[in-house]
Amino acid sequence: MNNKIVTLLTDFGTHDGYIGSLKGVIKSYYPAADIIDISHDIDPFDVRGAAFTLHTYYSYFPKDTIHFVVIDPGVGSVRRPLLLRTAQHYFVGPDNGVFQFIFSREAYTAYELDVKKISSGTPSATFHARDIFAPATGKLLQGNPCEKLGKRLDERTEVPRVFYSKEENGVLKLEAVNIDRFGNIVTGFSRRDMERMNKYAIDQVKVKDFSTNTLNSFYAEKSDGELMVLWNSMDFLEIAAVNANAAKILNFDKTKDSVQIKIR
Amino acid sequence: MNNKIVTLLTDFGTHDGYIGSLKGVIKSYYPAADIIDISHDIDPFDVRGAAFTLHTYYSYFPKDTIHFVVIDPGVGSVRRPLLLRTAQHYFVGPDNGVFQFIFSREAYTAYELDVKKISSGTPSATFHARDIFAPATGKLLQGNPCEKLGKRLDERTEVPRVFYSKEENGVLKLEAVNIDRFGNIVTGFSRRDMERMNKYAIDQVKVKDFSTNTLNSFYAEKSDGELMVLWNSMDFLEIAAVNANAAKILNFDKTKDSVQIKIR
Amino acid sequence: MNNKIVTLLTDFGTHDGYIGSLKGVIKSYYPAADIIDISHDIDPFDVRGAAFTLHTYYSYFPKDTIHFVVIDPGVGSVRRPLLLRTAQHYFVGPDNGVFQFIFSREAYTAYELDVKKISSGTPSATFHARDIFAPATGKLLQGNPCEKLGKRLDERTEVPRVFYSKEENGVLKLEAVNIDRFGNIVTGFSRRDMERMNKYAIDQVKVKDFSTNTLNSFYAEKSDGELMVLWNSMDFLEIAAVNANAAKILNFDKTKDSVQIKIR
Repeated sequence: MNNKIVTLLTDFGTHDGYIGSLKGVIKSYYPAADIIDISHDIDPFDVRGAAFTLHTYYSYFPKDTIHFVVIDPGVGSVRRPLLLRTAQHYFVGPDNGVFQFIFSREAYTAYELDVKKISSGTPSATFHARDIFAPATGKLLQGNPCEKLGKRLDERTEVPRVFYSKEENGVLKLEAVNIDRFGNIVTGFSRRDMERMNKYAIDQVKVKDFSTNTLNSFYAEKSDGELMVLWNSMDFLEIAAVNANAAKILNFDKTKDSVQIKIR
Repeated sequence: MNNKIVTLLTDFGTHDGYIGSLKGVIKSYYPAADIIDISHDIDPFDVRGAAFTLHTYYSYFPKDTIHFVVIDPGVGSVRRPLLLRTAQHYFVGPDNGVFQFIFSREAYTAYELDVKKISSGTPSATFHARDIFAPATGKLLQGNPCEKLGKRLDERTEVPRVFYSKEENGVLKLEAVNIDRFGNIVTGFSRRDMERMNKYAIDQVKVKDFSTNTLNSFYAEKSDGELMVLWNSMDFLEIAAVNANAAKILNFDKTKDSVQIKIR
Repeated sequence: MNNKIVTLLTDFGTHDGYIGSLKGVIKSYYPAADIIDISHDIDPFDVRGAAFTLHTYYSYFPKDTIHFVVIDPGVGSVRRPLLLRTAQHYFVGPDNGVFQFIFSREAYTAYELDVKKISSGTPSATFHARDIFAPATGKLLQGNPCEKLGKRLDERTEVPRVFYSKEENGVLKLEAVNIDRFGNIVTGFSRRDMERMNKYAIDQVKVKDFSTNTLNSFYAEKSDGELMVLWNSMDFLEIAAVNANAAKILNFDKTKDSVQIKIR
């Protein structure tokens, strides 16, 4: 039995036994599963944050890695349980937006998981991670083809979601998709977004009381506590503070506040 | 050397190096140990919470999994270090109540670990997880039979602990055994408990200011923020709020407050 | 492909995808890497805390384990990326103090990692964990000798850092290197430090309002909530409270407060 990699991204936290039972189910199907914890500390029900986080790591894993992503506020309702196949990877999780970056960046085939093909019992109404997504992952690990786990969905035409809106005079208003552990404010605006608009320079960045017209390259360019703007390691625009917490300094609330930039 | 699974449940947290050293000890005995983190964030010294959490995941793991459970407020005192063998699994940890659900649900053989048989050095007085339980786990992984690690204990007659008390007029008062990450209030009262009393319906549920006479099946049946009562995915009675935190809404304190139900 | 162990110690937290991408990079170089999480919850930028934590677990792991330690406030600046080889282990991380206990306790050979030998692309300016340290770890796992990854550094003459200072009349002032999850105040003063001074007894310990002239051996010797002083499981002097939080009881701030002891 070969080692096969499964990554886990959930909002289940690490205080309870939830991730324990789903790891147990995966192991019971395929004991040599190599389970890699990414995070279980996604903010509860934060589908957008999970979608962004997935996007920052999935591509680094080797071929045939299964990415398990369950943030599932609608568990028990009608949202579809999904299985995606791309050239390199598999993805398992609910059809609620967690895969929006995958849809817009990868060619994929989508399947709606068929509960009857996956599990002999009746799944609980509140814990599909354990009763549907983990068994589906287990069956994939055992070598079952996607077709045996669900119905292939017709071509989907997703409208790629963007995280900015256009204002007047070349100003863009950017949403923050994450405040990371260090207090860096990560916007959903990428270098790629800018290039698609045939724009190549940022003239001004404004976040609440802070405003600058220069971008930096790395944190150590400024002094402790100073604010700065840079393209981060994933090529998203980020507001950071040197060895300090930018979100706290700016009193930034990601659900209400935004970042304005002027580009040309 | 075959992969063998060890699950870890502790209250050591993830801020310090404690779990590092015990993982190192297990690996030094058996490098192919497949160590699965369940949680290290059990509330400090919360033996009851750990016992409940263990109960939610242990049975999902494959045969011969070793479940390592160390919440050990009495470390260094006289409580016995235990090894349990059930038909499917091994359990290693202190004899302080963390295994109470295993005792009441499984047939088992119990052994008192013998420090002299396990480790050549003198164990530290304050870190038996590293110096007794991890080496015992390592020796099990190496294939040693239980008899070589300790003394078989005579039949134990555990009085199964229940998490409810009977009041007048068919009312039961239920303890909360966990407030989970989402704020769900999980009581220690299971469907099985109710069936044992030959009762099959719940007429009323009362928690602080909230009262209802209907049970729901899944979260999506109600609107955001509404409170509801349901049998959760482990078949324990739970008070939840749709996409919201029930414990906060009710200002529920698990050490003081309780849930009243009326059954027939 | 043999299993090979990599331990991870970082301050990246578990809320974001950072550890996801670096685990992915390691796996892409060597899919059978056995990645062991020690902690990602070191306080942001707390190099001293990381150095102490590393010291508490590294020696328990089997031969040839690679210890990956990235707490890197100076990322992007001139601090050197290091690779260390000791008789038993490898260490990968920045040259900013995280290895200070290794330097003072182990014989080692040090290499400055050469980015050009490690990675074909240009590393990001802000995430060397993913772009330099993880690929270096991957190449070690593949069996490359240290010499192929960087330049051997001349003998270093580190002045071992100590965590105490001498006051008058045989009094020592000790720094706290960690407040652990249970609120234990762990000083940087070890039994070995004392023996090096040819001192063998502690006459008095004073921490803020608390003072005692006896040391205890284990937590259960006192009653709940009582303060005590003991050599902990790593042989560092520690102030603890029985089943309670010593740091909170004493209102102890590790950045400002200290512990005074009188030895003979």
